[in-house]
Amino acid sequence: MNYFETEIRVRYAETDKMGVVHNANYFAWFDIARVEFFRTLSHSYRELDDGGIYFPVVESYCRYLQPARFDDIICLRLQIKKLSYAKFTFGYEVRRKDDGALLATGWSVHGFIDASGKPGSIKKWRPELWEDLQKAFAAHSNNG
Amino acid sequence: MNYFETEIRVRYAETDKMGVVHNANYFAWFDIARVEFFRTLSHSYRELDDGGIYFPVVESYCRYLQPARFDDIICLRLQIKKLSYAKFTFGYEVRRKDDGALLATGWSVHGFIDASGKPGSIKKWRPELWEDLQKAFAAHSNNG
Amino acid sequence: MNYFETEIRVRYAETDKMGVVHNANYFAWFDIARVEFFRTLSHSYRELDDGGIYFPVVESYCRYLQPARFDDIICLRLQIKKLSYAKFTFGYEVRRKDDGALLATGWSVHGFIDASGKPGSIKKWRPELWEDLQKAFAAHSNNG
Amino acid sequence: MNYFETEIRVRYAETDKMGVVHNANYFAWFDIARVEFFRTLSHSYRELDDGGIYFPVVESYCRYLQPARFDDIICLRLQIKKLSYAKFTFGYEVRRKDDGALLATGWSVHGFIDASGKPGSIKKWRPELWEDLQKAFAAHSNNG
Repeated sequence: MNYFETEIRVRYAETDKMGVVHNANYFAWFDIARVEFFRTLSHSYRELDDGGIYFPVVESYCRYLQPARFDDIICLRLQIKKLSYAKFTFGYEVRRKDDGALLATGWSVHGFIDASGKPGSIKKWRPELWEDLQKAFAAHSNNG
Repeated sequence: MNYFETEIRVRYAETDKMGVVHNANYFAWFDIARVEFFRTLSHSYRELDDGGIYFPVVESYCRYLQPARFDDIICLRLQIKKLSYAKFTFGYEVRRKDDGALLATGWSVHGFIDASGKPGSIKKWRPELWEDLQKAFAAHSNNG
Repeated sequence: MNYFETEIRVRYAETDKMGVVHNANYFAWFDIARVEFFRTLSHSYRELDDGGIYFPVVESYCRYLQPARFDDIICLRLQIKKLSYAKFTFGYEVRRKDDGALLATGWSVHGFIDASGKPGSIKKWRPELWEDLQKAFAAHSNNG
Repeated sequence: MNYFETEIRVRYAETDKMGVVHNANYFAWFDIARVEFFRTLSHSYRELDDGGIYFPVVESYCRYLQPARFDDIICLRLQIKKLSYAKFTFGYEVRRKDDGALLATGWSVHGFIDASGKPGSIKKWRPELWEDLQKAFAAHSNNG
């Protein structure tokens, strides 16, 4: 397994009048994948956030293949696609758990900033986390 | 006219698979009514917020009469129902502009707190605003 | 245990600039509690929804006691407070899992309607579900 | 002016704990720009939607340059970037009205489908709308 995976269930409030999940919600799901991924590393998203380290989204993209529907269990898969001291790119897959169907793919680019909004180096700020991210990047890119 | 009124248009993202506006969104609409109401007073919501004065919702209620639909123009009406130094209650009406139909009614109770979360007196913190709120309360309760 | 309980985790997108969960999101959480509760009965929410049986919210209320924060695990507790063929009332508790703190309480009233919007009797439409709801109501009201 | 423009105001519920608009909301704003753009054509979005013609999002992208903040008035600009019978691409600019600052850019690709989900030709389904879209495309691409 060369990706990180977490599951959610589609909420009623996430659907729209087309009867399927509204396009904007996939980006909130990408958030969730990131948060759960960081929980497996030395510093959780919350701990970083509370410590004044943020990963604002610089770019985000989604390709919608098949609609997600109310009550579907959704597998969110995440990979680190690019990694540097100052910036990283996550790749995402959104799958329906039931049959494994690929519903969407996407990616997002993030910088590292402190509470004052100044960009910085994650290697300098959190060396352990930098090690963890490098390992995850290596693991994901070997055969992904 | 014994109420404050502002208009919004129903967004696609606010609908759900029942084809109508999802119940939670009415509470975000009540927010909008409050923000636009404060804009007519001596201190805008943003100015207060930036100055560290918040009005957290203590209680909120909505009664749904008829569904709001995508692209409807919605009239949000607001009245001050109760007012004291430390707390106030807003009443709301949600109407479809097209035919004036009453879609929902509601109310919310708010306290005043500072940035540290401590409750306080709006009369002491912003005397001018207190005057404005009293006037609005009087105007709304005379014949409302 | 005289209530039904399910868990969620607070999403980044659910917070607002006050740093805590926005008040409207609690009503989307009440949705989740209902959906998970019905999953334990003879007919799931999705199955009913697909079969053209809806439970539109007629009234909803929330009392906010303490803020929920990003990444908190939240226990959503549900009880049936009132039950008839045509209408029911759910009660909710929102607790922080970590320390059991009560963050919010609420309730919502629902009718039963078919796809054409006509109200009806759940006893007539889904007798088994009616049995299940009665049992849950009895269990919850015995010592709740 | 070689683009269509509409305005919105940032809602409290659209912010997150970083104090700025959450990244997913920009995609709901792109929706709004599309809906308001179609209102200037021979068929509104609602009319098409009610008539069983949908424009599901196939791909969407956003680049975030500067944060949008609570209560900002936002100018949403839209251009048709590509147009065919079966598919079109919109380009977006998100600007702060106050000083014209460019906050984000983006684009989205859409197909045309009917209520059964089958793709089709907008030229065949709504010839007038096809004319309007062509005109808008020509106007926007002349000097944009």
